[in-house]
This record gives sequence, C-alpha cells and structure tokens, in this order.
Amino acid sequence: MREAYHVELDQLAENLAAMSVQVADAMERATKALLEVDLGLAEQVISDDAKVDDARAECEEQAYALLALQAPVATDLRTVLAAIHAAESLERMGDLALHVAKAARRRHPDPVLPDAVKPYFAEMGRAAVKLARQVEAIIKTKDVSAAKDLETEDDQVDDLHRHLFTVLMDREWPHGVASAVDVTLLGRFYERYADHAVSVAKRMIFVVTGRMPGYGTDDEDLTI
Amino acid sequence: MREAYHVELDQLAENLAAMSVQVADAMERATKALLEVDLGLAEQVISDDAKVDDARAECEEQAYALLALQAPVATDLRTVLAAIHAAESLERMGDLALHVAKAARRRHPDPVLPDAVKPYFAEMGRAAVKLARQVEAIIKTKDVSAAKDLETEDDQVDDLHRHLFTVLMDREWPHGVASAVDVTLLGRFYERYADHAVSVAKRMIFVVTGRMPGYGTDDEDLTI
Repeated sequence: MREAYHVELDQLAENLAAMSVQVADAMERATKALLEVDLGLAEQVISDDAKVDDARAECEEQAYALLALQAPVATDLRTVLAAIHAAESLERMGDLALHVAKAARRRHPDPVLPDAVKPYFAEMGRAAVKLARQVEAIIKTKDVSAAKDLETEDDQVDDLHRHLFTVLMDREWPHGVASAVDVTLLGRFYERYADHAVSVAKRMIFVVTGRMPGYGTDDEDLTI
Repeated sequence: MREAYHVELDQLAENLAAMSVQVADAMERATKALLEVDLGLAEQVISDDAKVDDARAECEEQAYALLALQAPVATDLRTVLAAIHAAESLERMGDLALHVAKAARRRHPDPVLPDAVKPYFAEMGRAAVKLARQVEAIIKTKDVSAAKDLETEDDQVDDLHRHLFTVLMDREWPHGVASAVDVTLLGRFYERYADHAVSVAKRMIFVVTGRMPGYGTDDEDLTI
C-alpha cells in the first residue's frame, strides 16, 4: 500500500518539478522581453500561461487521487497537502510572469523601463528565476542544501525592491508618473514571485525529506 | 462514519466563517484608517493580523484531522480540499488589509491619499468588504443566491481600479510621484483582496452545496 503511495507521490513531485521549470522559463523570458522590448517573447509568455494553469489542474487531480485511493495519514498526508499548496503557488508565479509580459507588451514599441532602473530588474529577474530553478533542483536531486541559498536570493530580491523604492520616491525621479506607476507594479510582481518561490521550495523540501527547513521566522507560509 | 464527517465539516465551515468576518473587519478598519488618517485604527489592524494567521493554522489542522480520521472520498474529499484553499485565500486577504493599514501608518500624520482619489478607495473598500461578508452569509445561511452579487461587487472593484489608473496616468496628475506610487500599490491591494474574496465565496458555495457556482469564465480559481 505504502509502495503505491510513494510511486504516486514521486510522480506528483516530478510534475511539480516540471511546473517549476515552466514558471522559471516564463519569468526568464518575460524579464528578457521587458529589458529588450521584445514583443514576440512577451507574446510567447502570454500564450504559454494556459499550460501552467493546465499543469496545476493536473497536479491537483493527482493529489486528489492520492488522497482518495491511498488514504494517507500522518506525514504522508501532510506531504500531499504540501504538494497541493506548492501547485497553487507555482500557478501564481506563472500569473506574475504573465503580468510582467503583459506590461512589456502594453507599452511596445516603447520600453516600459527607464534605463536607470533596468539593472534593478535584470538583477531581480535573475534572482527570482534562480529561486524558481532551485525548486526543480530540490525535487530532482533531493539535495536540500539548496535551502541555504533560498534566503540569500530572497533577501537579494527584497533589497533590490527596497532600493527601487528609494529611487522612485526620490524627489528627482525625472521619468514621469506613468513610468513610476509601471515600475511600482513590476517591482511588486518580482517581489511576490520570489516570495512564492521560497514558499514552494520549503514545501518541496518537506515533500522530499519529511522535514521543514529551519531557517528564518519571517515566513508567511510555514503552515503546510 | 459520514455523520461524524459532517459534524466536523460543519465545524470547519464555521471556523472559515469566523475567519471571513475577521478579514472583513480588518479591511473595513484599514480603509477607515486610510481615509481618516487614523493611526490607532491602523495599529489595531496591524496587531490583529496575527489572529488571522492563527485562525488559518487552526483551519488547516482541522482539515488535516478530517482527512486523516475520516478518509473522505469523492465530493466529500473535494469539499475538504476546497476548505483548505479557502483558508489560504482568507489569510492572504488578511495580509492585504494589513498592507493597507501599514500604508496608512507609514505616512501618518500626512494622509496617504490625495482628496481626489478618496472616493475611489471609499467605494473599493465598501465593495471589497461586502464581498468578504458574503462569505459569512453563504456559510451561515447556506443561501447561495448571494452568489449573484459576487460578480456585481467584483466588477465594481475592477471598474474603480481601472478608473483609478486613468486618473494616475493622466498627464495632469498633480500630486507627485511618491503619492502615485502609494496609490498604485493600494489600488492593487484592494483588487487582489476582491479577487481572493470571490475565490473564497465560490469555494464555500461548493463546500455548503456540493456544486460549483456557474457564472463567469474568467476565474483564476475554478479548480477546487
């Protein structure tokens, strides 16, 4: 009975890994589209989002089947619940990448970002995508030492986001209100994407090891 | 066996109703704090947020116990999963009200909102809080005709949010960039709060009736 459970759970974990690759790619492309004013790439992210939604529905159905057919209890049950929450966060990450792509498309052929802030978004994008790719690493390798890096990358996104705010609130912001509005929203999309990525990574550490990672106290989603 | 399940599920639904009241009150107070520049009220929302987090943890534990002890299948299982998702969204609504309260506190004693946009936020607040209170109504009365109103209130928040954007992007916005940044973020908090409220209401309709409400195609969270 438990062997069947583990085969099914491994399959579910693989699907979550695949989903994390999808949303990492989406944010990588959306960031590129933003920085390079690339309409085609933005359109690709926008049309690919439906696949992320489908993947989430599939993960939920798998989790439902696991619960219904295997009736897991104790840690096994919490593991399936963690996987369900992870799928929901991954879908939200896909939506946030979609929002970035839509912003790039909305202002095309003009760039959304003033040159002065492009380095912030290049870095936030890099850190956010790296966080999402760590989810796949955790699942594939079962190597939870990747958990150490989570805090570093998340702090980086938060720091960049805070600096961005300083720049925006500076009395000398010369790029106009519309640009400030765009940059505000985009900064928030990256910040929320990174938050969700950390949450997913921690839940997946629980799924593959049965133990929650023990760093930080500041986390919204320590509940499985 | 199934009678025990129903007793437990009713208890869980009651706890979700209580949570929805908490987050409705939080957003009502946060909105008042914002409009009336009321630091005391903002501080109350900020310190009460921990109770929302506790309530969510309690709901998850109840759901876990239901799954572990009753091993529900079919619709009963989907119902418990719907309740788990609802608890997560309700916690997020609490966080969004918290963000509104923190914005009010951050600029105190200055108002965050220019007079010109206060009416937008008064209305968005009213509609958003009404949506959250409909969750309680659905659970307490099992009256799902409230579902009709969901679309109306949600559309209203979206319309107001769009109008707010028009005002922000107007070349004549005279209130400065910092103010535009604050208003952008606040508008997004209300819009996301309303999105989550609709999602929770629909899941609770499923929990109390076993059927998903059938309106709209535009919904992020039709997956249970």
